[in-house]
Parts: sequence; C-alpha cells; structure tokens
Amino acid sequence: MAATRWKIIVEYDGTPFHGWQRQEGDLLTVQAALEKALFDFCGQTITLHVAGRTDTGVHAAGQVAHFDLDYGRRPLSGFELAKALNALVRPHPVSVLHAEQAAPDFSARFDAKNKLYIYRALRRHAPPTLERGKIWHIKKDIDIAAMQEGARHLIGHHDFTSFRSSDCQAKNPVRTLDRADIKTLPYDDCGGTEIRFYFEAQSFLHHQVRNMVGTLALVGYGKLAPADMTTILHAKDRTKAGPTAPPDGLSLVRIDYDEK
Amino acid sequence: MAATRWKIIVEYDGTPFHGWQRQEGDLLTVQAALEKALFDFCGQTITLHVAGRTDTGVHAAGQVAHFDLDYGRRPLSGFELAKALNALVRPHPVSVLHAEQAAPDFSARFDAKNKLYIYRALRRHAPPTLERGKIWHIKKDIDIAAMQEGARHLIGHHDFTSFRSSDCQAKNPVRTLDRADIKTLPYDDCGGTEIRFYFEAQSFLHHQVRNMVGTLALVGYGKLAPADMTTILHAKDRTKAGPTAPPDGLSLVRIDYDEK
Repeated sequence: MAATRWKIIVEYDGTPFHGWQRQEGDLLTVQAALEKALFDFCGQTITLHVAGRTDTGVHAAGQVAHFDLDYGRRPLSGFELAKALNALVRPHPVSVLHAEQAAPDFSARFDAKNKLYIYRALRRHAPPTLERGKIWHIKKDIDIAAMQEGARHLIGHHDFTSFRSSDCQAKNPVRTLDRADIKTLPYDDCGGTEIRFYFEAQSFLHHQVRNMVGTLALVGYGKLAPADMTTILHAKDRTKAGPTAPPDGLSLVRIDYDEK
Repeated sequence: MAATRWKIIVEYDGTPFHGWQRQEGDLLTVQAALEKALFDFCGQTITLHVAGRTDTGVHAAGQVAHFDLDYGRRPLSGFELAKALNALVRPHPVSVLHAEQAAPDFSARFDAKNKLYIYRALRRHAPPTLERGKIWHIKKDIDIAAMQEGARHLIGHHDFTSFRSSDCQAKNPVRTLDRADIKTLPYDDCGGTEIRFYFEAQSFLHHQVRNMVGTLALVGYGKLAPADMTTILHAKDRTKAGPTAPPDGLSLVRIDYDEK
C-alpha cells in the first residue's frame, strides 16, 4: 500500500523548545518531539516538512507540516491520528489541532500562499506574570501612532536585507509584505496596554518579523522617524535597522493554502 | 512617624504557588513571596491582608491587598513602591500592577463591594499548549445554552452550602450572586472554542466558583437539567452538586471598592 501524505496543523508553546528544527544531539525541538511521537505511533522513522521554521522561544497557534505515512494495517482518520499524536507527545507543550489527508504532491512550505505572524507586546511597568514568555515587556513610553506610520513603509515588494538575520540562508532577500499593522487593546484594569503587530506575507526571511518589530520600537521611542523605515530598507544593511525583538511575543498564527 | 496604609493590586500566575496564604514551612505562596519582597525593601516584617484568598493553581489578574508600612525616611510614591516590589519578588510570577496610599481604616477584604471571577475552559480535542495551566481542557461535547440556562438559576440570594467546600470556614453559607453568565469565543482556527464563565458577588464561599462550574459542566454534558441547579441549591448538600472544576481556569479578575 502506498504512503498517504498528511497535513497537520500544530500549536505549541515555544518556551521549552530549541526551535522547530531537529538538531544534533538530544536538544528538544518541536520537530523532534513530533517525530518521536510519530515513531511511537507507527514504528517508522518519519520526517516532518514544515511550512515555516520557528526559532527558540517562538510560538505557533497554527503551524503547518506534512509527512508521508504508510500505515498499512487499516484506514486511519485524521481525528484518530491527531488524538494519538497528542497523547504520545505529552508532556511537551505541542498539540496537533487538525490532521487531514493531503494530495500526494502537497507541500506545507511551497504551497503556502500566506502566513500571518502576530507579535504581542505589553506596555506597562509591571512585568507580565500570567503570560511570561508569551509577550514582550515594554517598560518605556512608546508612540503607537508613530509605529503605525513606520509600519506602513514596510508594506510592499522590497529587498528586506536590512531586516534579515546575518544567518539567513535565503538566496533572494526580496519579499512582498502584504500587511504590517498595529492594534492596541487594554490588558489589565491598571492601564496596561497590549500592542499587537500583524504581519502577513507569502514568506518571510529569517528574523524578519522580530527585526521589523525591534526597529519599529525605535520609532515608537522617538529614536527613529517613521520615514526612516524606508531609508533603512534602501540601505540593504542589517546594521542600519534596530535590534531583534525577543522571541517571546512572536507567534506563527495562521497559514493559508488554496482550496483543493 | 505613623505607618501609612497601602493598597496594592496584584497579578499572578497561580501555577507555582501553594495558593495565596502564607503556610508553615518553606512552601511558596503569593503572600510569602510578597512579604519577603517587602522585608527586603524595608527591613520590616509586614503582614499582607488580602481581599480574597486564592487556592493552589488559581490565578489573579486583579487581586487586592493592604498593609501598613512606616517607611520613615522620606516620602514614598506608589510607583516607587510597586517598582521595588516587582524587582525584589522576581523570579516568582507575581507583579504589583498598582500601589496607592489608602485611608487608615481601608480593608482590602471588608471594603470590597464586588468581585469578578472569570473561569476559562477550552472546548476542543487537542490539549492546550500556550495556555497550559491557564484554561480547563474540556474534551467532550458540551451544551453551552443548557449551561447558560443552568447558570441563571444560581443568580440571587441563596444558601450556597451545596457549592462550598467541606473545608469552608465561613459561618454563613448565604451569599448573593449578582452575575453568572457564559460567553463563548473562537480559540483557534480549527474549531476550538473558549468558554468563559463570569461570576460576580460581594463575596464567595470556599471553592464556590469551581463547584458551580463543575456542576454546570454536568448540565452541559446532559447529566443534569438546567433546573437541577435550583434543586441542588435547595438540598444544601455538597454531595448533590458536581465535582470541583480544576483550578487552572480560574482567575480573580477585578475587585471593586467605593470611591473615596
């Protein structure tokens, strides 16, 4: 019997993981935890192919991966597969929210049409407690309107060299950013404000979101003007942009594919 | 110089704490962590008086406490006090969101006019990951409308003996529940639903909220009818109600006081 290609949607708390990607040695990664659960389920060594690798400490509410499984014995439902993987992957904080059979040529990575990342920050003096590790703590006053204006300069088809990690291995630094906007909402009853950055694109460069957020924060602090975002894009020089925002606030929230 | 009475608003992740109240021995509690921070701040042994004790694993977004501090040396602002306590209480996940001077006779507990508890549950098959310990995982189908109808039977002035812990030390089991309602919101993009229970009253009995939620869940599962909530109230018998829902989903969100 031929292998079936499966598509899974995965949620995880990135805090205890050394990122998505399997590493040498015994380092805990999301991929290693899920592949171990798959092995325990079917006795086969199966390789997961992911839509967007996430770094250490980065979360996902809707990561997508695919893999091929020759289950042989009997028909397997997506519900049954997800339930088994969720039981076997404990105690690691990763859950398969959905599993479905996909076309034999489906690629989680190459068929992705759009990815939504949300970066969450907490503007107040007191450190976060209930969401420690899930939100970036911003202690200083920050100008939201200036950041919103700065974010608009990032939208469109640009060379994002200034905003990618020096480790980024993508051959082409040009990306089309379809959405870069910011919303605020009350976080507590003592004046704390959550700042949510929304970024959508078909694909992103390594550290691109965190570098955009870290640079927009400099705009918010008044150290850069909103229009400096364009100057920084044109410079194509990582040293012209701001620091990389911490992983805590970042989550890969949704990946869109064409309907079959 | 006379002592000043301070009111503080506190947020904490209840997960690592053995509840609010100081215990014999070295058990980590929220009160012990904050009193240790106060001692480190001023060199005095200061007792915190809390509005509503929370149990092990129960969270707070807006707990309130008061204490008396003779700082002596110089004027102390609420901002400075909160900042110092937040620095000294690390690494424990408790934050002082606000500190202000209160009237000398202010009582966090006895002056509380209204308390809001929110109990959060997650209805989906996959276990929670990002909010593990912060939300009750409900795997089975549950009838929200039936629970809403059941909750309405709890509103009002009742003897809540059936819904209080056998350890509850309150002399009077009669309480006035001003609000008991349920809202749902989407939790993920795979059909997961968050169920939020809202309860408001001037005061609650020990385990009252968790016992009401655990019993409403039986209504949601179809094991009880909504009107059984009234029968259970009238029985004044803890064994007639449902099990205690786990602490994970519970948070003391807000406490209201009269304006001075």
